[in-house]
Amino acid sequence: MLDGLFRPRAVGVIGASGNPYSIGHIVVKNLTNNGFHGPVFPINPKGGTIRSIQAYKSILDVPCDTIDLVNISIRNVFVPDVLEECGQKGVKFAIVHSAGFKEVGPEGEELERKMVETAHKHGIRIFGPNSQGIQNADPDVSVYANFTFVPQNPGNISIMAQGGGMGEMLKLHLHNVGLGHRMYCSYGNECDLTMPEILEYYGKDDGTKVIMMQTESFKDPRAFLEVASAITPHKPILAIKAGRTAEGSKAVSSHTGALVDQVKMAEAMYRKAGVISFTDTHQMIKAAIAMSTQSPPPGNRIGIITNTGGPGIQAVDESISQGLQLASWSEEGNKKLKETQFAEASLGNPVDVVATANQDHYHAAISTLLAEEETDMVLVFFVTAPFTDIDAIAKRIKEATEESDKPVVVVVETFSENYRLIENLRAADLPVYEFAEDGVRALASMSKYAQLRDRVREDVPQLDTDQARAEAIIKPYRGTDSYLTQEDAFTVLRAYGLKAPRMAGFSSVQGLEGAAEIVGFPCVLKIDSADVLHKSDEGGVILDLADFDQLKDAHEKMLEKFGPESTCLLMQQMPKGYELITGVAASEGLGSLVMFGLGGVFVEVLKDVSVAVAPLSMPEAHELIRCIQGFEILTGLRGNDPVDLEAVAEMLVRVSLLANDFPEIVEMDLNPIFAYPAGQSPIAVDARLKVE
Amino acid sequence: MLDGLFRPRAVGVIGASGNPYSIGHIVVKNLTNNGFHGPVFPINPKGGTIRSIQAYKSILDVPCDTIDLVNISIRNVFVPDVLEECGQKGVKFAIVHSAGFKEVGPEGEELERKMVETAHKHGIRIFGPNSQGIQNADPDVSVYANFTFVPQNPGNISIMAQGGGMGEMLKLHLHNVGLGHRMYCSYGNECDLTMPEILEYYGKDDGTKVIMMQTESFKDPRAFLEVASAITPHKPILAIKAGRTAEGSKAVSSHTGALVDQVKMAEAMYRKAGVISFTDTHQMIKAAIAMSTQSPPPGNRIGIITNTGGPGIQAVDESISQGLQLASWSEEGNKKLKETQFAEASLGNPVDVVATANQDHYHAAISTLLAEEETDMVLVFFVTAPFTDIDAIAKRIKEATEESDKPVVVVVETFSENYRLIENLRAADLPVYEFAEDGVRALASMSKYAQLRDRVREDVPQLDTDQARAEAIIKPYRGTDSYLTQEDAFTVLRAYGLKAPRMAGFSSVQGLEGAAEIVGFPCVLKIDSADVLHKSDEGGVILDLADFDQLKDAHEKMLEKFGPESTCLLMQQMPKGYELITGVAASEGLGSLVMFGLGGVFVEVLKDVSVAVAPLSMPEAHELIRCIQGFEILTGLRGNDPVDLEAVAEMLVRVSLLANDFPEIVEMDLNPIFAYPAGQSPIAVDARLKVE
Repeated sequence: MLDGLFRPRAVGVIGASGNPYSIGHIVVKNLTNNGFHGPVFPINPKGGTIRSIQAYKSILDVPCDTIDLVNISIRNVFVPDVLEECGQKGVKFAIVHSAGFKEVGPEGEELERKMVETAHKHGIRIFGPNSQGIQNADPDVSVYANFTFVPQNPGNISIMAQGGGMGEMLKLHLHNVGLGHRMYCSYGNECDLTMPEILEYYGKDDGTKVIMMQTESFKDPRAFLEVASAITPHKPILAIKAGRTAEGSKAVSSHTGALVDQVKMAEAMYRKAGVISFTDTHQMIKAAIAMSTQSPPPGNRIGIITNTGGPGIQAVDESISQGLQLASWSEEGNKKLKETQFAEASLGNPVDVVATANQDHYHAAISTLLAEEETDMVLVFFVTAPFTDIDAIAKRIKEATEESDKPVVVVVETFSENYRLIENLRAADLPVYEFAEDGVRALASMSKYAQLRDRVREDVPQLDTDQARAEAIIKPYRGTDSYLTQEDAFTVLRAYGLKAPRMAGFSSVQGLEGAAEIVGFPCVLKIDSADVLHKSDEGGVILDLADFDQLKDAHEKMLEKFGPESTCLLMQQMPKGYELITGVAASEGLGSLVMFGLGGVFVEVLKDVSVAVAPLSMPEAHELIRCIQGFEILTGLRGNDPVDLEAVAEMLVRVSLLANDFPEIVEMDLNPIFAYPAGQSPIAVDARLKVE
Repeated sequence: MLDGLFRPRAVGVIGASGNPYSIGHIVVKNLTNNGFHGPVFPINPKGGTIRSIQAYKSILDVPCDTIDLVNISIRNVFVPDVLEECGQKGVKFAIVHSAGFKEVGPEGEELERKMVETAHKHGIRIFGPNSQGIQNADPDVSVYANFTFVPQNPGNISIMAQGGGMGEMLKLHLHNVGLGHRMYCSYGNECDLTMPEILEYYGKDDGTKVIMMQTESFKDPRAFLEVASAITPHKPILAIKAGRTAEGSKAVSSHTGALVDQVKMAEAMYRKAGVISFTDTHQMIKAAIAMSTQSPPPGNRIGIITNTGGPGIQAVDESISQGLQLASWSEEGNKKLKETQFAEASLGNPVDVVATANQDHYHAAISTLLAEEETDMVLVFFVTAPFTDIDAIAKRIKEATEESDKPVVVVVETFSENYRLIENLRAADLPVYEFAEDGVRALASMSKYAQLRDRVREDVPQLDTDQARAEAIIKPYRGTDSYLTQEDAFTVLRAYGLKAPRMAGFSSVQGLEGAAEIVGFPCVLKIDSADVLHKSDEGGVILDLADFDQLKDAHEKMLEKFGPESTCLLMQQMPKGYELITGVAASEGLGSLVMFGLGGVFVEVLKDVSVAVAPLSMPEAHELIRCIQGFEILTGLRGNDPVDLEAVAEMLVRVSLLANDFPEIVEMDLNPIFAYPAGQSPIAVDARLKVE
């Protein structure tokens, strides 16, 4: 438990000084100015008084036995000795602001090791080093053990950021719109206490309703995945992954490698964990604000109420773009609107209550829509007019929303003279925005959260796989970092229940006839060489061979092209189906990722691929298929029979099991796979597997 | 000229009253409270005093001969008589706030006609009716002849909105961030004075540097296109088209019709005019703010300066997403950065000057980047720290930007205690944002404007077309609202220099042999009937007929399917090329639109089509091709020869000329077209033309 960190009984500030710009000084100021409930003890080798508090020369001199937490901002080399003293004093957590550890090279690394060793000897956990600190605005504690500048006010959104500037920005915007936060931390180097441990603590904190986080890199993605997956069923996690366009990922030759980049990896992890992913900081904060007071909607149908046309249209446009549906009203609902609104009001969706609408018109419109069974959420737009009573309107809007659990957001168009309207609505726990689009996007994020939270969850299915057979094939490749021959690759696939064409390898002209007998006609002749990566492009695949004469000709050509010693493979020509591509790539710390896409231009030009973390459950496999852009193609267009989606999903599960059982398969490309209508399993007609 | 409207010497307010909630009262208040330079004359049948100003019973009683403008908010039926008096008084413009005209039915329409007639008799122009009014914050006039509530401050962004609520919102946000505006209007019904006339006036106003507009529908798109095209080379127009997801567009059977919806129409018009299109209100305003003080960048390479890492990464991610490039520094630039920055600063892009950077570090970083030949714009991020002198930093940032014309935006992360920093930067004409992403998007919009402004412009080329030949074919169809036969359709295409396969029509078994002689083998047999719209889907196309026997069989099947009287067409089988689709759709008020896309799934699933207004110049045709998502395919992937883009562009120009010469072609679909590598013209293998 991290109570000693986030709910300390007393705090020591080691490195506190009279210099108002020093970290130690600012931490003392932040703790005392924000009403920390326990005592704060500045520690300075010179003693003296710091911000009117007596400073001690050593923590050992402090007449208090409940110092759970210390903030340390002294020079790096002194940290281990100071920790030794902290240990003797019974300190439980140390926030190390100081830099100069692992990030500066071997010497710092050694110092870090020593620091952690000393700490652990005494059961102290280290937060940092090179870190900003933590905050907990819970009024019962009110701890601001952090050197940032935003005043602390209680709220129920907790924030965790790897980058200090980003964390500060999230906290700051909440402050600037009059809201507070719950817990906060920017955790720096993660030498001991890890991000997933803190996340877990946030998850268990009853005062935290929403978690916002920013990450630059995942030190332990697997731990994050487990912790986040346990939180999202009851609490939303909103996340930004920095560096989504980073071009630093290693260039590899296969499709999969190039496509499974950092962005896709985070995307796969977030999807599996049910984390809502954002790319825009402001959008994430706005969504968090809505989630901090509103419940997720039961569905995706939005009702819009406005007193002016234009912003209502903007709300409609944005709703559709965000995948929401416009609700329509029941007969009863229509009747109630007609009874309660002005004759000139427009009673469709949006309901335009017109500019002269008063508090009762707003109340009736909101409560009518919230009572509609087929309306899941409501956006209220209100432009103030000189003749409206804004206090009464704020009050009546609040009253209308109290009758229902469905989420309501309010968009207010007004100027400084009427800002109290915004304050009143916020005080009534309603999220308020300046633009209709922002309100819609916040609701859409809530709807997305509800979908993620409520999705079908199943265990990874137990399928008939022959791990021993695959092991026998893979074993000799282990440690060689090389590609399997085509025959071996397909044998491994078959061992995992993946369908493959009939095939026969041969390495001499003499073998040709025997191979043809096994495979039959029509057939395909392929070069089988690790040196030829893009076989089709390089002329290493000859299709449509109808008889033995054609096959002989083709084989001669092949030997001419690739040399008389080349090994070839004969393969049954499969009827052309829907062209799919599936791949596997290893990711550090997270295990294997499974990639899915449509073949051809979809992957080449549009990079239209989805990625998931192996192993997959059946619902996860279906989701992987559904979330590609070109999904509609698989459902059968212009009279084509739809593909057997269940069979494709099962194939993906099998691929994911193989990848999971053999993490040494660092690269796998099944491209193309032919998929067929109902009742037929997909067949991989080319396979490339690389074992590390 | 609209000087009488936007720079009136005196204003009469007809319908002014003592009721503080009445429009007339509010207009008097707005005019006087915002310091209108001329006299304001309230007109009320009861006379009296309104807001301490003597009211007159009739405008004819007013002792002033320079009333250029009146605001009218009396009951609709009295308006024409009042206008009669205004005419006698020499009034030039009348803003009619009153509703109850064309929008309420035939009676109102008649009243509107009478109103306009009376006005025109006296040379009065009407603004409205059912309108909000106008403003001009030019300090030389300061006219607020509008009943909205936002206080007026001078600025150089002019606003025009069809929807009053949207116009108000644009104005309001500028006010809320401490900025003013130049001219403003929300124009209502457009019974006389039109939106393009006002836009033209904004374009000629030296005090207007940027124009923001919102439109729900275009009354005269052609006029808008001409006016906007003349403005954008020297002044940016930023626009939101409301209703971009409207599902109300008529359902037509052909692809083109369904795809050329309202969104695409506005998109085509904006592109041709060089208008920058937005879907998000807030984004548009933020871009306008940057453009109001900064010059467009010479290219798209961004330099980023920050004093904290995370927001710098957000800026990089957003830059790449917005199509900007990260600049890199010259040797000289690297040297200067090294000399002027802290040793721990990171000198790549972003330049991280680190948290302790002072005013001189910022100054040096900004001035170095602005001096770099290969850096076109700079984003400066600054999180305030307790030890930095924010006044000095604001001053030095400003000084650094004065040395260059390149645009600079500043993103400031701070809280209320330091808001004067933001005010100081804004006072120094620097755009300031709260989030890094917003700053990047504003710069990206400026870069887009520069590209639009500087694009190559050419006249529509004079090509060899045989209009008379096409006229002869089309003439009998005119007024029939029907599809041309395949033969006629292809004859029209050939008349415009569009290539088509050899073909021969026939209507009996006897004709088959003759047709085959003309066309040769291999050939394609097609049904030629207006009733069969999707020929391929319905089995009306049989491909790959290699000899006469196969042809005869195919013909028998065709007659079996579509009836013994069916007319068929024999067509040369063309070698398969890149599959394209081109179409034409008529649009009300704007003429014909040309649509372009890749065939197959691209159009079916991804709706990946671009649209332009006919006729096209060659650069416009090239742009139409380039801006589809799948463009890369045409450049040759995986060893394929690239398509002859010049030939495709010429084909599009020819299609656009045909559409332009014959506006009665309300629908045209060339689908598919086969396009080939260098030196070969594209060939339409199926064509559907409908004439109204």
